Amino acid sequence: MTRERLYLFDTTLRDGAQTAGVDFTLEDKIEVAGMLDRLGVDYVEGGYPGANPTDTEFFAAPRTSHAIFTAFGMTKRAGRSAANDPGLQGVLRAKAEACCFVAKSWDFHVREALGITLDENLETIRDTVAASVAAGRETMVDCEHFFDGWKANRDYALACAKAAYEAGARWVVLCDTNGGTTPEEVAEIVASAATVVPAGKLGIHAHDDMGLAVANSLAAVRAGARQIQGTLNGLGERCGNANLTTLIPTLKLKPDFAERYEVGVPDESLSALAQLSRAFDELLNRPSNRHAPYVGANAFATKAGIHASAILKNPRTYEHVTPDSVGNHRRLLVSDQGGKSNLLSELARVGVEVDRSDPRLDRLLADVKAREAQGYAYEGAEASFALMAKRALGRVPDFFTVESFRVMVERRHNALGELVTMSEAVVKVTVDGEPLITAAEGIGPVNALDVALRKDLGRYQPYIADLRLTDYKVRILNGGTEAVTRVLIESTDGDGEAWTTVGVSPNVVDASFEALVDSLTYKLLKAGAPAP
Amino acid sequence: MTRERLYLFDTTLRDGAQTAGVDFTLEDKIEVAGMLDRLGVDYVEGGYPGANPTDTEFFAAPRTSHAIFTAFGMTKRAGRSAANDPGLQGVLRAKAEACCFVAKSWDFHVREALGITLDENLETIRDTVAASVAAGRETMVDCEHFFDGWKANRDYALACAKAAYEAGARWVVLCDTNGGTTPEEVAEIVASAATVVPAGKLGIHAHDDMGLAVANSLAAVRAGARQIQGTLNGLGERCGNANLTTLIPTLKLKPDFAERYEVGVPDESLSALAQLSRAFDELLNRPSNRHAPYVGANAFATKAGIHASAILKNPRTYEHVTPDSVGNHRRLLVSDQGGKSNLLSELARVGVEVDRSDPRLDRLLADVKAREAQGYAYEGAEASFALMAKRALGRVPDFFTVESFRVMVERRHNALGELVTMSEAVVKVTVDGEPLITAAEGIGPVNALDVALRKDLGRYQPYIADLRLTDYKVRILNGGTEAVTRVLIESTDGDGEAWTTVGVSPNVVDASFEALVDSLTYKLLKAGAPAP
Repeated sequence: MTRERLYLFDTTLRDGAQTAGVDFTLEDKIEVAGMLDRLGVDYVEGGYPGANPTDTEFFAAPRTSHAIFTAFGMTKRAGRSAANDPGLQGVLRAKAEACCFVAKSWDFHVREALGITLDENLETIRDTVAASVAAGRETMVDCEHFFDGWKANRDYALACAKAAYEAGARWVVLCDTNGGTTPEEVAEIVASAATVVPAGKLGIHAHDDMGLAVANSLAAVRAGARQIQGTLNGLGERCGNANLTTLIPTLKLKPDFAERYEVGVPDESLSALAQLSRAFDELLNRPSNRHAPYVGANAFATKAGIHASAILKNPRTYEHVTPDSVGNHRRLLVSDQGGKSNLLSELARVGVEVDRSDPRLDRLLADVKAREAQGYAYEGAEASFALMAKRALGRVPDFFTVESFRVMVERRHNALGELVTMSEAVVKVTVDGEPLITAAEGIGPVNALDVALRKDLGRYQPYIADLRLTDYKVRILNGGTEAVTRVLIESTDGDGEAWTTVGVSPNVVDASFEALVDSLTYKLLKAGAPAP
Repeated sequence: MTRERLYLFDTTLRDGAQTAGVDFTLEDKIEVAGMLDRLGVDYVEGGYPGANPTDTEFFAAPRTSHAIFTAFGMTKRAGRSAANDPGLQGVLRAKAEACCFVAKSWDFHVREALGITLDENLETIRDTVAASVAAGRETMVDCEHFFDGWKANRDYALACAKAAYEAGARWVVLCDTNGGTTPEEVAEIVASAATVVPAGKLGIHAHDDMGLAVANSLAAVRAGARQIQGTLNGLGERCGNANLTTLIPTLKLKPDFAERYEVGVPDESLSALAQLSRAFDELLNRPSNRHAPYVGANAFATKAGIHASAILKNPRTYEHVTPDSVGNHRRLLVSDQGGKSNLLSELARVGVEVDRSDPRLDRLLADVKAREAQGYAYEGAEASFALMAKRALGRVPDFFTVESFRVMVERRHNALGELVTMSEAVVKVTVDGEPLITAAEGIGPVNALDVALRKDLGRYQPYIADLRLTDYKVRILNGGTEAVTRVLIESTDGDGEAWTTVGVSPNVVDASFEALVDSLTYKLLKAGAPAP
C-alpha cells in the first residue's frame, strides 16, 4: 500500500517569535533555521520581511537549505493594487522560494478589524495570490480564524478558501487562530473545506489553548489536510502552536499514521529529536519541559519498583515506543520505591559499569535507601548519585579536602543611612597537602561560599574555569522543628552539559556547601583531572 | 434539554505521586486534599493504604470532605482468598468510602507480569470486587492497559471489564496506561466496552505520552465514558496524566460539552482555577507552566500589537474564552483591563473590604504589578498579599522596626576533631522607641535569625508565643547572574491556622528575613496586638 506524503511547515521563527519572552536575534534565527533543516521539515517560515530589521536581514543572509524557505506577509490592502502595496512588495522582494499570506476568513473580522466589505476581502486574497504566483513564488494562504469563521458564516469562510485556491495557491491553510476548536469540529470543518479545495492542497495551523493542538492537527490530517504547521517544542503565542517534536514521532512511529502517511523527516533525525529539542531550549535559555511527550527527560522515567522490573523483563510492558527511537533514555528512578533493577539500569545510564553480582552493589543499594530516608533525592540529582556510586566502587579520588569555612551575612545602615546587606565567606581547603585559604564576597552566603571555594583549587583551578551555577532549589522536609533542608544545585559548563547535585542538612548553608562540593568534584572527574 | 452528569476522579495524590521529583509529605497530602475538595471534584484518590507509612497515616488522619474519599489498591493475589490477602484487607480497613483496584486486562501482562492463567485473573477481579462491595465500599476497577489489551485480545479485555461490572463495581475504568492510544482508537474501544458495561459505569484514565491525554479523555466521554480520571496540572508518571485544570474549563465553558454534560465543579471554583493551579505548583516548589491552557500566566498574553488592539475593540477577536472565567488575567502590551476587578476579588478573598472607587486601589494595583515583576508571587503567599493591601490602605501599624542583623555560619573541627557547623545571629530592633538587641544560635542561619528575632519583642512578646515555622521554600528566579531568590515561609499558631509569607532578594538570608518579618507582623495583627 503506497503512503500519502504529509508536508511539515515550521513556523518557529514566525509564529514562535510571538511567544512572550522570546526575542530571536539574527544569529538565533540562523542557528534555528539550521536545526530545522537538519531535522528535515519541508518548509521553514523565516519571518515577515519588511516588518522588522531582524527579519529583513535574515532573508538577505546567505543560506543553504533543503527546506523550502518561506516568507510570511499579509494580503494587500483593499483599494490599492498589489503593485502599489509596499508591504506586499517587500515580501515578494525577499529571497524566499515560497510566500505565505495571512488572510481574514471570518466575516466578523473582515468587518471589525479590516472595516471592508466581504467582497473586497475576497478580491484582496485573489490579487495577492496572483501577484505572488506571478512573481514565481510557491504561494500559500493562512486562512485566519477559519474554524470560528466557518461556524459564524460557513459560506463566506469557504468562499475565502476557494478564492485562494482558484487564484493559484499551492496550499490553503486552515488556522484555528484562537485555539478554541475541538477535534470533532476540526474533522467536520476540514472535510467541508475539502469540498471546495482539492485533496492535497489543504493545511492545518492549530493552537494549544485547550491542550488540543496536536489532536486537532491529527484530526485534520484524517479529514484531508496534507500540510501541518507547527513549532519546535510547541513555541508560540499564549499556549503555543502545535508541537512538531510531539507530532513527528507520532506520525513516524504510530502504525495508525505511519502505515498511511510518510513525512520528510529521516529516521536519523527522529533518533536525535530529544537532543534537538533540548538544544533549542538551550538556545532560548529556558529549562526544558521534563514531561514533554517523547523528548522530555522524564518521558521514559519510571518510579514504581513493580513497573521497573516489568520493564526490564520486557520494555513493551510500560513503554508505547522505545526511548532510543526518539533519542531519549529510559530512566528507572532510584527512589525508595525502586529496587536493584532500577539501581543497575541507573548505574549504566550514568556510565558506571558494574557486574550484577558485585557484592558492593547491595551495600550501595542500602546506602542509597538510607540516604534517601535522610532526605537525599537522587532521582533529581544524578551527578551526586554517580559520585556516590563511583565512591562505593572506589573510583573517586579526593581531589581536595575542606578543612573549614565561615560565612557571614550582615544587614546594617551604611554611611548614607541606607539598609545594605553584605555576604562574606572564608574557605580553607587542602590540595596535595598544601593548605589554601580564600575569602570572597557574594550576593548571598551560598554565592560567597561558591566564589571563595572556586577562587583557588591550586592545580585543579584550570579544570573548573568554565563551571557555572544555573539553578538552586531548597526544600524543607518533614517540616517542623526537626526539619531537614534539601538543596539541589544545577551546574553547567562549556559543553552545555547540565548536572544536578544534592546536599542535605538541618543547616541550609551546610546542605548548599555539600551540593557545591559534589558539583566541583563531578566537574573535576568529567574534565579528567588527575588524581592527587 | 437535560444534561448528563460527568464525574471527575482526581488521582493527584496517587498516580501523581509517581511523578519524578514529587515526594508528598503527610502535610502536603492533607493540603492538596483540601484544595481538591474546594475545587469540587467528585472523587479524591488518597493513595495506597498499607503500601507506605505516609499513605497509611493520611487515611487515618481526620478529615471533612465533600468528595468521595477513595483508597487505591491491587486486586488480591491469585490462589488465596480475599480474606487472607493482607494487601487487600489493608485497603478495606482504610477509612475511605470508596476503593479503586487496579486489575490486569491485557492477556500478555497476565502471563508476563502475574504469571497466572487468564481465568485466574478474572477470578481475582470478581473476588476482589465482591469483597470490597461486601465491606460496604463504593467499588471501582482500573483496567490497566485496557486499550493495548483490547488490541491484542479483544475478548479477554472485554471479559475483564464485564467481570468487574458483574461482580458489582460501580465504575469500570479503562486505562491507557502507556499513553500510546490515539483518540480514534479510544472512541472505538470505549464504544466496544460499552457493549458489555452499561452506560454510566465506564471511566477513562489517560496518559499524555503523545500529548493526547486531554483529547483521549474527551473522545472517551463522547463514546460513553462518564468518569474522567486526571490530576492537577497534569501531574503523573512520565509525561503525566490527563490534566484536570485543562479539562474542567473545556467541559464547563465549551458549548460542545457544556450543553450535553454537567460536572460537579461550581462556577466559583472555575473562576479561581488559575490561583489553585499556581498554589499547587508552589506547594510542589516548582515553576508553573506559563503556557498551560487556561491557567498559564501567558494563556491570555498577546504580544502582537495588531491582535492587542483588536482585543481591546472586542476580546472575542482573539480569545476563545474570557480570562476571568478561569481566574486568569489578560496580558496585553497596553494596560491590563481586567486588573482592578481581579484585585478586588483577591482582596475580598483575604478579607480586605474596600470600595471599588477608592483611589488607593490604583496605587495598590500598580504596587502588586511592580512587585510581581520583581519576583513576588502572591498566589502562594496570601498573608504577605493581605499585609501589602492593608498597608496600602493604612491599616498596618509599625509594631517594631529592625535596625540591623548579623548572622554567621561556621564549620570547623571541634575539640574532638569532629566537623561541626554552628549558626549564630544577632538582631537589633526598636519597639516603642526602645532599642532591643538579641542573639541566638540556631540549626541554620534562618532558624538563628528567627529565634533571635522572636526572643524579645518587648510588649509584643506574649502575642507571638505560639508562632511556629512549618515550611520554608526557596527558588531562584530568572536564573543566571541576575538571579533573584524567592523565599516562601509557612507559619502556624495555636489555632492551627497556617499562613504563608514571601520575601524576594538577591540574598537568600535577606529574602528569608523579609518573609519572617511579614509572618510576625501578620501574627501580631491576627492576635489583635495594640498599635504602638
